[in-house]
Amino acid sequence: MSGLNETHDPALRSWVESANGATTDFPIQNLPFGVISPNGVEDDRIAVAIGDSVLDLRACFRAGLLDGLAGDKSHAVFEARTLNGLMAQQPDVWSALRLCLSRGLREGATQQARLSPHLLAMNDIALKLPSRIGDFTDFYCSIEHATNGGKMSRPDNPLMPNFTSLPVGYNGRASSIVVSEVGIVRPRGQFSKDGKIVFGPTEMLDFELEVGAFIGAGNPQFRAIPLSEAPEHFFGICLLNDWSSRDVQSWEYQPLGPFLSKGFATTISGWVITQEALAPFRVPARPRDKEHGEALEYLRDANNDARGGLGLRLEVRLHSENMRQNAQPPEVITATGFDSMFWTIPQMITHHSSNGCPMRPGDLLGSGTVSQYGEKAQGCLSEITWRGTNPIQLENGETRAYLLDGDEVVMTGYCTAPGARRIGLGVCSGRVLASLPK
Amino acid sequence: MSGLNETHDPALRSWVESANGATTDFPIQNLPFGVISPNGVEDDRIAVAIGDSVLDLRACFRAGLLDGLAGDKSHAVFEARTLNGLMAQQPDVWSALRLCLSRGLREGATQQARLSPHLLAMNDIALKLPSRIGDFTDFYCSIEHATNGGKMSRPDNPLMPNFTSLPVGYNGRASSIVVSEVGIVRPRGQFSKDGKIVFGPTEMLDFELEVGAFIGAGNPQFRAIPLSEAPEHFFGICLLNDWSSRDVQSWEYQPLGPFLSKGFATTISGWVITQEALAPFRVPARPRDKEHGEALEYLRDANNDARGGLGLRLEVRLHSENMRQNAQPPEVITATGFDSMFWTIPQMITHHSSNGCPMRPGDLLGSGTVSQYGEKAQGCLSEITWRGTNPIQLENGETRAYLLDGDEVVMTGYCTAPGARRIGLGVCSGRVLASLPK
Repeated sequence: MSGLNETHDPALRSWVESANGATTDFPIQNLPFGVISPNGVEDDRIAVAIGDSVLDLRACFRAGLLDGLAGDKSHAVFEARTLNGLMAQQPDVWSALRLCLSRGLREGATQQARLSPHLLAMNDIALKLPSRIGDFTDFYCSIEHATNGGKMSRPDNPLMPNFTSLPVGYNGRASSIVVSEVGIVRPRGQFSKDGKIVFGPTEMLDFELEVGAFIGAGNPQFRAIPLSEAPEHFFGICLLNDWSSRDVQSWEYQPLGPFLSKGFATTISGWVITQEALAPFRVPARPRDKEHGEALEYLRDANNDARGGLGLRLEVRLHSENMRQNAQPPEVITATGFDSMFWTIPQMITHHSSNGCPMRPGDLLGSGTVSQYGEKAQGCLSEITWRGTNPIQLENGETRAYLLDGDEVVMTGYCTAPGARRIGLGVCSGRVLASLPK
Repeated sequence: MSGLNETHDPALRSWVESANGATTDFPIQNLPFGVISPNGVEDDRIAVAIGDSVLDLRACFRAGLLDGLAGDKSHAVFEARTLNGLMAQQPDVWSALRLCLSRGLREGATQQARLSPHLLAMNDIALKLPSRIGDFTDFYCSIEHATNGGKMSRPDNPLMPNFTSLPVGYNGRASSIVVSEVGIVRPRGQFSKDGKIVFGPTEMLDFELEVGAFIGAGNPQFRAIPLSEAPEHFFGICLLNDWSSRDVQSWEYQPLGPFLSKGFATTISGWVITQEALAPFRVPARPRDKEHGEALEYLRDANNDARGGLGLRLEVRLHSENMRQNAQPPEVITATGFDSMFWTIPQMITHHSSNGCPMRPGDLLGSGTVSQYGEKAQGCLSEITWRGTNPIQLENGETRAYLLDGDEVVMTGYCTAPGARRIGLGVCSGRVLASLPK
């Protein structure tokens, strides 16, 4: 399923006119899955995005338009309130559904009249979390991010020796994951201030620009997923903001790692870009420097090296309260690329399961902060401002060391490749709200 | 609900004769909840343990014997396949159900004839995980354990400065939690051996003796649970074995904490001892040494100090393949107490939610390894054998630095107090199986 097929044809146009614009994230070559609810009604169902619209897949299933696409699992897939049922299927099911939707949504499709009653305007729905996320794991796969972070605390030895040997990761908090546009209340926590440990609203609130990867079919406990099979267990990606309170993190993280400095909220973009939609944008995995040697055998695979990377550009914009009041647009504060990640998504899946840890459909892996070298190419304020010592100068005269109340952080991402239609990841945004009274 | 009432009366006897024996873990004063399935049939339902039997609560509900006990939530509570529905209720519902069960199971109860058809022998059922565990958090609340662990890596400065300021914790892996008696396959992982990093079966497999605490009603995201309200969100406890591969842990844990060294399996005992059953065994929280100063305000509460501790004895037995073949009983290798924990369960709940992290009914908190000073009073082999340098001498002549294939680790626990009937926690056991072929 990883090769290109007719669904990738850049000449395809949709009868949903907004899908044909040059700047839409969701042309017919994308077809990302999500969970929606008609605004104001708690009645979640799965859907696919197309231009400025969404196609209600539960309604299509009930109308008999998706017959036979998931065999005896059809009810579990299309009547579900989350994407877990679809994610649990094999790639051939995902692929058949994508092909059916691509054919039905094309300009001139005979199904237009039967599908169009199930099309809703994006503005008329509420986007929900795409899956019931059993476990959320956050990795740390950018060597630039790891090196920058290390330099701040260990100038002589910034990169930990394990970084190039395994994809370092830790367990995140699943319950605090929210979808784009949910407001983020500034968390309280313990941190060091003026030589004392205090408890109060964090004074170093940061974002982390990441890519999230959803697990498809799981693995039984105690059975590892070899790297050659990892792509079959990888459903698709989203944008992810791993909100972080740096002052809390510094005080709490030893010896067991980050905990409450992260677990108050993680925002994801909501639409899941499938592995198949990403096929035209695959690039070779980042080559290892000579000094890093070869990866251990279980993390090595010629196919992964050749196609495990992803040509994905990512941007972060900041929209302050002041900008909003003056009708100024958000300002880009980071532009970076996912192709420079040291470890690939299949390597994360294989390493994660190498001890026999069971992955379940709908589980989420975060890539870790995406950073590159160069000006404003780092995925968090801590790196951009060097722990607040070198604040960002915004065009309207404001400065930022860390986030202020009212700041909205807007993440976007898109893939381009020669001969392919550009696709986007949608938006992952969240506005910082003042701490609640105690 | 925290005070003593008629359900605690040590003179109570049950018409279930096995519940009246001096050594049973499950006298009528206990009444722990669990999830069972008739052996060989996948049809999980909630139940309560009494002596060597279990009472099928779904069957009792269908027979009209539990009417009105959970109001309009009765169907969600008693028809559920897990305890999440019951855990989500307020303490008055838990208490009313306990009282009803206590009265119905007492010697001379008029309900005996109607309840007894729904009684199953413990040997005829399979015990399941008690709840759908949304998130699993593992704390690190024994100062002796933290000090011992620290001494091995930092002899001059064993205890991290944050230990006495907050309950250090990290997110665990929910998907790999299993119930007692599930075999534990020795995990593979990366570790340092003879100066090289290798990938293979762990050579330092350890157990960690912990107490698990289940969350009752949750809190909305961004709303903290004050310490005064934390007991209302605490449903009950179980035994927990946080299996650990120490060689993997040493190599992977910096800077984000333990990950695959833990996430292959965590075993819990299955029966959940309710907060109310534990009421007679509450003891004052461990007093803080003068040098530790006072806890910060949000972790301080006179009521918590007076009653936040728990007089719970814990034991670990080892049953080797050799012992089994020679019909020898398991040998006690650790006996320790939960009353020496530095932080209480309510403090863990309050700290965890202090950043606004939402807790959900059925979430699980681990206490961290329970250790005390003294011979064989530590909750893991790493401490008992001082990282393998001082192996345990077993009575049959075997020695153990770390666990061998075939070793069964059996954890038990019980509470006693003057004037109270002894109650037990059941058994948390798991046998180590050889690594699977690649």
